[in-house]
Parts: sequence; C-alpha cells; structure tokens
Amino acid sequence: MSDKDFLNNFDKISRIGWFENEGLNRLALNEYDIKARDELILQLSKIDAEINMDDAGNIYGSIGNEKNGMIAIGSHMDSVPNGGRFDGTYGVVSGLQMLKVFSKSDLNKKIMVIDFTNEEGARWQPDLLGSGLATGVFDQDFVYSRTDKNNRRFGAVLKKTRYYGSSENRIKYLKPEYYIEPHIEQGPILEKEGYIIGIPVGIVTDIVENYTFAGESNQAGPTPMNMRKDALVGASKFIFQIYELARKIAPNLVMTVGDIKNLPNVYNVIPGSVKLTLDIRSPDKKLAYQHSKIAKDMAEQIASENGLNLTHEVAWRLDTTLFDQELTKTIEKVCKQLNLKYKFIYSWPTHDAMYMNKITRTAMIMIPSHNGRSHTKEEYSRDSDLISGLKVLKNTLNKLML
Amino acid sequence: MSDKDFLNNFDKISRIGWFENEGLNRLALNEYDIKARDELILQLSKIDAEINMDDAGNIYGSIGNEKNGMIAIGSHMDSVPNGGRFDGTYGVVSGLQMLKVFSKSDLNKKIMVIDFTNEEGARWQPDLLGSGLATGVFDQDFVYSRTDKNNRRFGAVLKKTRYYGSSENRIKYLKPEYYIEPHIEQGPILEKEGYIIGIPVGIVTDIVENYTFAGESNQAGPTPMNMRKDALVGASKFIFQIYELARKIAPNLVMTVGDIKNLPNVYNVIPGSVKLTLDIRSPDKKLAYQHSKIAKDMAEQIASENGLNLTHEVAWRLDTTLFDQELTKTIEKVCKQLNLKYKFIYSWPTHDAMYMNKITRTAMIMIPSHNGRSHTKEEYSRDSDLISGLKVLKNTLNKLML
Repeated sequence: MSDKDFLNNFDKISRIGWFENEGLNRLALNEYDIKARDELILQLSKIDAEINMDDAGNIYGSIGNEKNGMIAIGSHMDSVPNGGRFDGTYGVVSGLQMLKVFSKSDLNKKIMVIDFTNEEGARWQPDLLGSGLATGVFDQDFVYSRTDKNNRRFGAVLKKTRYYGSSENRIKYLKPEYYIEPHIEQGPILEKEGYIIGIPVGIVTDIVENYTFAGESNQAGPTPMNMRKDALVGASKFIFQIYELARKIAPNLVMTVGDIKNLPNVYNVIPGSVKLTLDIRSPDKKLAYQHSKIAKDMAEQIASENGLNLTHEVAWRLDTTLFDQELTKTIEKVCKQLNLKYKFIYSWPTHDAMYMNKITRTAMIMIPSHNGRSHTKEEYSRDSDLISGLKVLKNTLNKLML
Repeated sequence: MSDKDFLNNFDKISRIGWFENEGLNRLALNEYDIKARDELILQLSKIDAEINMDDAGNIYGSIGNEKNGMIAIGSHMDSVPNGGRFDGTYGVVSGLQMLKVFSKSDLNKKIMVIDFTNEEGARWQPDLLGSGLATGVFDQDFVYSRTDKNNRRFGAVLKKTRYYGSSENRIKYLKPEYYIEPHIEQGPILEKEGYIIGIPVGIVTDIVENYTFAGESNQAGPTPMNMRKDALVGASKFIFQIYELARKIAPNLVMTVGDIKNLPNVYNVIPGSVKLTLDIRSPDKKLAYQHSKIAKDMAEQIASENGLNLTHEVAWRLDTTLFDQELTKTIEKVCKQLNLKYKFIYSWPTHDAMYMNKITRTAMIMIPSHNGRSHTKEEYSRDSDLISGLKVLKNTLNKLML
C-alpha cells in the first residue's frame, strides 16, 4: 500500500459526484453519497473488515483485536452543494488506508474507520446529525424528524437505503479509546505561514443569531428620503458596522452576515423587512458572547435611529471545544520526529470531532488548504500535504499502540 | 348618476381580484384583470358607447361627436401582486363615470375612457407596455416577445383573450386633443400638507441601474477578517452611503436600493457576489444624472477599498416629462372655482400619461393617499377625496368643451 495507492484511491472516491463545472454535489444520502458509501463498503469487504451501520446511517469498518482498546479514525463523505473534493473525504479515506496498512497481526488494538452521515447540514439542519445521534447529543426522534428542502424526513430517507442500521451500533456504546479526525484546514493560515500540519487544540465558540429589521414598504418614487423606514438601509448599516467591529478585534474573532432576505425585493419598492443571520466565532468564549451582546446593542441603536422594529433570536450557541491535550501532544511529537513544520491552531469550522470529544479522547490533524478556499470547487490540497497528514496519522497510531 | 353611484361602482370594480388578507392580485391579463375588463365592457355597452380594442389589448370606450375633437381619460386596471384597490382603477372608473354623466346631446366633443394593459410591469417588464405600444414608443415585436415569470409571452397570452384588437385602433391614430389621467398620489405629501388635489407639472427623471459587487466566497469560520473579500460588506457600505447622500439632497431627489441578490446566501459562507438595483429619481434631470455619476464613483471606490470587482449597467433612463401647461392651468382654475386646496407637484412614479404626453396635450389630477401607502393592501384614499378628484375632472371637461 504505497502513498501512490492512497492518492489514487483518494482521487477515485473523491470524484464520486464530482462535476468539473459544478464541483462536488454529494449531499447526504443522495445518489452520489450512496455510491461513495458503496465503494467504501466494497473496499472494507476486500480486507475482511468488520462492517456495521448504526441508526443514523453512520458506517463503521474495523479490524484487529479489541481487548486492548480501539482507536477510531473518521470524518464524513457528504458535501455542500457545489462543494470541494477534500472536505471530509480526506479523513475517511485516510482512516480506510490505516485499515489497509496495518496487518491484523501487527495490531494490539482494534482500529476503526467511521463515515458519519450528514456532517455538513447542507441537506438536513442542523449539521453533525450522524455524529450527534451516535454520541447521544441528539435523540433519534429529533434526528429522524429533520426535513430537507423537499420536505423529506431524514428518518424516512435513511430507511430506504441499505445504510439503516441498529441503534446498538452507535459509537458511544463501543467506547473507543481515541478518535482522530484528519481534515483540511478550510482556511488560509497554514499555507500562508508555511506550515505542513495544523494541530487543533479545539474548536472555537460558534454563535449563530437571526436578526429582522422591519420598516415600511412603499413605492420608491413618491416617498421622500426623510419619511422612509427603509429596512435594508438599517440592515446595511448593521452589516457594515459589524464588519468594522470584527476587523478591530481580529484575528481572535470573526463575524459574518452570510444570509440576507429582503422583502419585497423589487427595484421600485422601499424594502419593508430584512432578515439576516449573524455568525460569531472565537476561540475565546467570553469574547464571542461579549460581541453577541455588542452586536445586539448596535442593532437596537440602528433600528431606533431609523424608525425600524428589531427582532432577534439565538439560533444556536456552541461553546469552545478543547481536544485531549495528551493526544494533541502525541501528534506534536510525531510531527517533530517526521520533521514536519506544525502549528497549534483552533478549528474555526465545526467537525464530527466536536461531538466525539464528548465521549472519548479526541484530536484532529489538519493539512493546508490552497488559498484557504473551501466549500467551493476551488478547494484544493497538494498531494504532498495529503501524504504528510497521512504519515502523521500512521505514526500517531503507532505510538498509541505501543 | 350621483356621487354615491360612482363610489358604489368604484367599490364594485376595485374589489374584483381583491382578497382581505392579500390585497389586490390583478396582474395584467390574469383571470381577475379579465373579469374587471368584462365589467367595464358591460357597463360601456349599457350606455351604448363605442367600444374598441387595439393590438396591445387596450380598451377604448367612447361617446359623442368627434368633429370638434376628442378628450381621452384613462389609466389601467392591472395591479402589482398584493397591491391596492386605488392605483389605476380610480382613473378608469372616473373616466367611465364621465361617459355616464355627460349625455350625448351635451357633448360637442367625443369623450373616451381608456384602460391600458400592463401598466404596472409586474407581470411583463418593462411597465407601460399597453400605452407604449399604442403611442408608438414600443413596436409590436418588442411588446409581444416580453415573457412573464412562467415564460409566457405577452403576445401569446393576449391572443387567447377576447381583448386582442387591431393595431389600427391604437390611440395615436385617433389623435385625441387631450388626455387626462386621474390617479392617487402614491406618496404622503398631499395628505401631510393638507391639500385635496395635486396637479402634476410632470413626471420626474427615473434612472435605474444594476450594480454587482464580486468578491470571494469562503467558509465563514476559518477566513480571518483581514483576508476576506466579502461582497455583502461592500454592497452594504454602498447602500448606506447612497442613503446618506440622498438624504442630504432631499426633497428634490430620491435614491433607492430595492432589490438585492446575495450569493450563495448561506449563514456560514462569506458572500461571494451581490447584485443590486439603484433607482434614482428627481424632477431635475441634471441632478439625477449627476447623482448617477456620484453613485458609480462611490461604488468604484468601495469596491477598490474592499478588494471587490464592480460591474455596472444602466437598465433605463427616463428623462423628465413635462405635461401641457395650458391644461394644468385649466385644472388649477377648476380647483380655485371649486375652492379645493391644490398643489403643483411632480409625479414620482411613472404613469401611462408619460407616453400619452408624447402624442397629445396631457395632464394628471392627483388625490391624496392615506399615509402615502401604495402598492400594498394598506393603500387607501378617502371617499371625499375620490369625489373631489371626480369633480375636478368633470369641471375640467366642461371647460375643455366650451
């Protein structure tokens, strides 16, 4: 099993559902996600791995002797619409590779690869549904009742596939000793600063909130500027001020308005209402909550100055995750031994590792994303970086099996 | 034909396609527009009016002797989605009322009521399609090839109705001596300042432009604030600065960003591109063009400061229309005689009168809109104001027939 075999296999699996003009369209449990799963199962069968599915459709493939414990390696193979080939798939194919490179006789622990269902939250919200159910963060009723944009329930869709397994197989009942998730950075820092490996000490706090500015919709011509209650003007001031505020705090905080719905959204009508999302992230939980408060005060002031009504609700607040320090130190040692330039970082996006961290010693291994692009077809990581991450994973497993 | 009859008839016709919760849904040539037309035809038949249709589906009903000329009164009966009962319908029902109150023997001129097709531009763009074809502003190929959002062509839809008439009946061939359009103000000025009648001296210059700010879409978490090219941040700064700029110039100018499309519009993705419309109106053509230039410079500066690419295109530029001064003075005299408080104003929205002004002496009679609301189910004008406008119309006709 050479590095070349790994790269070929990564290329093969990561192109299932890939279109040159569109990127990767492998939404959870769609036909391409199923094809990618089938390929994973086929390869696991060829090496006589034990294969199980749980009631979230998560796939578990494992080899070795469990009596000295188990090390799980995983990620996800679903993508956002028009996504990239590296996000998620890199972790699953790397885990699969570990099952291939370690012969059963070498193993004093069991090793397992996991493919978690619906990590992205692109088809069903919220994200991390598979790892959430398998670790006990969500219950089955909640997960099964999630609907996609065609109003199809997660539970109903899953049951029609061959990936509907038993709740007894959830990872939390298998009590792994470690969970390691190899992943692309999805940001520009490692490449920009010349690092090969990022070792996340944790995942940042993520607060997502919905704001609605409501004004008064009128024909654009005859309403003088000083008699307007233009919801989009208020929302725009908010968006711009949020950006200026976050720039001052950078790099320890990011704030993003990504989604905006303007009504009625007609060229000659003064906007009557604007709904928008604010996403606040920081490794420093206190700083994130502080800025959630500052943003709300800012919005209230803008609304009152512009004759608008403001409504505000918290969509979710995920506090900072801290990974297992011993495990991250083991990964650091491996990087030093391999002479790979590494950096301790935070993961700014969420990952299945966030929920796995609740049930076992967890860490991640990150490799550079070219230009920091992710969730787009331009997402790219170099072959040499894919291989470096794989080496760090293998050497970490070796250390953990001592 | 008492005022009460007029109000009852206005109520009856304006409620065709009206739903208490939704407002008026009488998009051009939809089932409700057809019902309203059928009612107009029925009432015209009852008074033995001459009825014609042209190749835009415009309806012309007339009585009297043409040898001393013809006075046309008109507007439209189509609405925007969820529109109000007064916009357009008031002018048509007022014109119809004139055909009822003047007995044929009294008339030394012909009088005509016109219902123009697709004034709103809500179903087919651009607006004023009916009056545009009838006055020679647009040619038939252009008008017929317009498609609605279900991809149905204006020409194909019209031909399936009983309102498809001959191009020979276009109003421009009938050479009316005058055209008068009674209409609601659609703005707050008359009510706020205590006037009963507004006499538009013309229609303001209207420039509509499309701007696109293009940046770089990335996952919101891992991209630091100082490495972002957030298209929505640039667009927001533009929207807010435009508002501040226009407020300084007010009341002689309005600028509105009404339509905004943000891509990909997902809460955790940095916006990659924002397309928006800018609508600039002013009675002062020079001021409007000046501010079109200032806005473009402003957008270019914002784009360059924020690492964004800017594209800009002019959708249309309609220069200031000036109505017939003699006719507006005649209307002024009538207001004085009736002791109705009047004000010379500009019309800020466009009307069929804009194109009719190209072929004949044209003026409008405006009545107050409560709170300035229009293009919404809250649109409202008081009975007494509807009647005052009707009286001004009737007395103006009397003067023109002397």
